[in-house]
This record gives sequence, structure tokens and C-alpha cells, in this order.
Amino acid sequence: MLDALPLPYPFDSRAGRAILRRATPADADALITLLADDPISAARGDVASDADRPAYAGALREILAEPSNDLLVVDLEGTVVGTLQLTSIPGMARRGSRRLLVEAVRVRSDLRSSGIGSAVMRWVADAAAPALTASMIQLTSDAARTDAHRFYERLGYTGSHVGFKYTL
Amino acid sequence: MLDALPLPYPFDSRAGRAILRRATPADADALITLLADDPISAARGDVASDADRPAYAGALREILAEPSNDLLVVDLEGTVVGTLQLTSIPGMARRGSRRLLVEAVRVRSDLRSSGIGSAVMRWVADAAAPALTASMIQLTSDAARTDAHRFYERLGYTGSHVGFKYTL
Repeated sequence: MLDALPLPYPFDSRAGRAILRRATPADADALITLLADDPISAARGDVASDADRPAYAGALREILAEPSNDLLVVDLEGTVVGTLQLTSIPGMARRGSRRLLVEAVRVRSDLRSSGIGSAVMRWVADAAAPALTASMIQLTSDAARTDAHRFYERLGYTGSHVGFKYTL
Repeated sequence: MLDALPLPYPFDSRAGRAILRRATPADADALITLLADDPISAARGDVASDADRPAYAGALREILAEPSNDLLVVDLEGTVVGTLQLTSIPGMARRGSRRLLVEAVRVRSDLRSSGIGSAVMRWVADAAAPALTASMIQLTSDAARTDAHRFYERLGYTGSHVGFKYTL
């Protein structure tokens, strides 16, 4: 976990009062369901199969155990409706800047456009990055996610790079 | 540093016998020069200014101190002619897969097309990723680096994502 993150973070959305908080092992099932609630993730194998539960639970433990990673959830009246992963990365480029990598941003499909995603991403830029002394935030988004691209552009992100993947 | 990396890695290139090894604090000046030997990096402020040397040296120490990060250099007969950073990241997506993030890949401008970059990137896929139990490698490349994009595509990378950046 990233100890410096100012959590929990309560915020209002059009779906009601929500809390951004650190995930716990008890959130594993809700996170697996959330990942499968997305056609692009499902096409990559995230289909909430029972056989994969030990792998997901192990990954969640690893993320929470690493001091440069954290997994957060959006809790709406006791239900997990969103998630994102943060990784703090030191670097030589840009005069020795630390970067904050955002991965696996998901909001439950029926709650998109409720203001949850933008509240969370504003907290990343305004609270998380400064707390981690990061001067740049970066993320990649599948080229097919054109709605997500407009969302990030509205928040001030620049799609200046091509994201390459190599699957072993 | 990433203890599991199988280093040093000696390899042949058209520029001669080279060694991929972990950077040390003594490599800081050579790394700063290498970063500045690139117009896109220079435009972002990496111009090898003396005023920035303490920030670069601090960043190098941080990278080497973190157990999920490493900074490598290509040593050609005692001269640093290339570099890359590796970050090992646990994740929930893709059924709890660990990813290997590659950042800041640079080869000295007069030595491009010498086979150094491809030898290093093949080592990343064939040796580093398996040693770290990563099943996916990812990197972003500035949209203006079209030569680099062809290079990664030749190595089997797919430019399936848009890389977004937000500078604080």
C-alpha cells in the first residue's frame, strides 16, 4: 500500500454519497465481478470464473503488500462500485520526476456518467499525486475505449503516446 | 532493484561486445548525457543542466532502492551507450497478472540500428519477464517516435492503447 495516500476520501456523486477507500481482502469477490462487468476485460479472460479466484486473491494481497502500489475501491453505501490501482514510480526522465501510474480504472456499468469517475480522477490529481510527490500522472486506455478517452481529455489529460503491449 | 533479474547480460551487437548491467550511482553523469541526447527528452527539460544533477542523482538512488524498480545500462567497452528502466507491477486485471513496465528506453543516437535496442528488448521478453513472473510487458512511446513504433512492432508489440499523461 501507498501509506501517504490521504484515505478514506468521502465525496458526493449523482448516485449518492460515496467513499474512496483502500481495498481489503474482503473486497476480492466484488472486484472480480467489477472486472467482468466490462466487455474488453472479459475478452482478455476476466470473466469471474471460480477457477481464477485464487489468482485474483493472490494478486490483491501482492498489491496491498507492495509499498509502491495500492488498490482502491469506491464504496457506495456498502457496495463496491468502482476501483483503480495506483503505482508510484521514481524515474530519471523529466529531471528525475516521480510518476503516478493509474491502472485498471473501472466504474460499474450502470453508474457511469454519475460523476464517480471524475471525482476519483480529480482526487488522484489534486490529492494523491501531491501526497506522493509525483509530478506526472500517466495511464493507458484501450484504443477501443473512445468514451474513456474523451473523459480523460476533459480532465486535462493529453493522449500524446502510443501504449504498446506484449503478451507472453 | 529487482533482485531476480538475470544480470549482467553480455551480448554482441554491430557496435561490438556489450554488457547489459544494473546502473550504479557512478553512472549518473553518463545517464544524464544520454537523456539529453534526444530531442523529445530535451524538449521536456532533460538538457543535462548542472542545476538538475542533484535531482537526477536522487532519482537514481530511489530507483535502485525500490524493490520493484531497476535501472539498467548498456555498457560498451566501459562507456554507457543505452539505458532502460523496469518496474514490476502486480495487478488484478488479466486474471491477476503481474506486468513489467518498461520506461525510458534510450540508445545513444549514433548507435541506433546497431542491434543494441533489439538485443535488450529481447532480453526483457525472454529473460527479465519470466524471472519476474510477469505475463505482460507494457510501455508507452511518444506519438512522434514513429521509428520507435516500427521497432516495437517488429519485436511483436501491439500498439493497442492510447497513452495519456497529465503534468502537474
